[in-house]
Amino acid sequence: MTVSNEVSLLDRMLGDGLLASACPTREVLDHITSRWGVLLLVALSERPMRWGELRRVVDGISEKMLAQTLRTLEVDGIVHREVTPSVPPRVDYWLTDRGRSLVQHLLPLVSWVADHADEIVAGRRPAASRT
Amino acid sequence: MTVSNEVSLLDRMLGDGLLASACPTREVLDHITSRWGVLLLVALSERPMRWGELRRVVDGISEKMLAQTLRTLEVDGIVHREVTPSVPPRVDYWLTDRGRSLVQHLLPLVSWVADHADEIVAGRRPAASRT
Repeated sequence: MTVSNEVSLLDRMLGDGLLASACPTREVLDHITSRWGVLLLVALSERPMRWGELRRVVDGISEKMLAQTLRTLEVDGIVHREVTPSVPPRVDYWLTDRGRSLVQHLLPLVSWVADHADEIVAGRRPAASRT
Repeated sequence: MTVSNEVSLLDRMLGDGLLASACPTREVLDHITSRWGVLLLVALSERPMRWGELRRVVDGISEKMLAQTLRTLEVDGIVHREVTPSVPPRVDYWLTDRGRSLVQHLLPLVSWVADHADEIVAGRRPAASRT
């Protein structure tokens, strides 16, 4: 990406009011970049998963946050929820076409963080003293 | 990105415990993908900004959240804070080399969201009824 692309994104976001608090971009960004949203999208990036698998893979997520985050992503058309009427019913989740398009753009960011997190944590020093 | 890359990221994250709640990747992801973290990084992607500019550009951010988010990004070595001892003191913020590397991976995601947010919001329907 060139500097001019970065400039045009910021200009475009400012010009279109995309950094304004009420815009759809802000709202959708909140869903996707929420703590659990990111982790669920990474988990589903490989293959469909069942409820219990998602709970195990995304360490620390509560039943409530798992349900709430999956439902938000389902309403946004990013995750599909499929119920198989067996006994007991089986529920699978997978990425929609839109979700697969999204994770193509999310995974490089997560990879960058995975590559740099140790060095970031190891290199921390207190913020400069305030004036 | 190919499917095999996605598989290897998930495998790698699971294998290294990167989805575990205590890992550095989760912690740094939280800082970068926080609501205000994303917006501040987009705002700084073009050029250095002063405190007051950041408050105006990132609509809705409180003084407290602006200070807290900038300090977190500074401690992580992503944002540099420069104080010019004028009267009154002038404080500028810009991305470090690490921060510029990061936004190369963040901006494509934000662009994707900006491109799709209207269609996502317009196409919403209630989540399927629960079983």
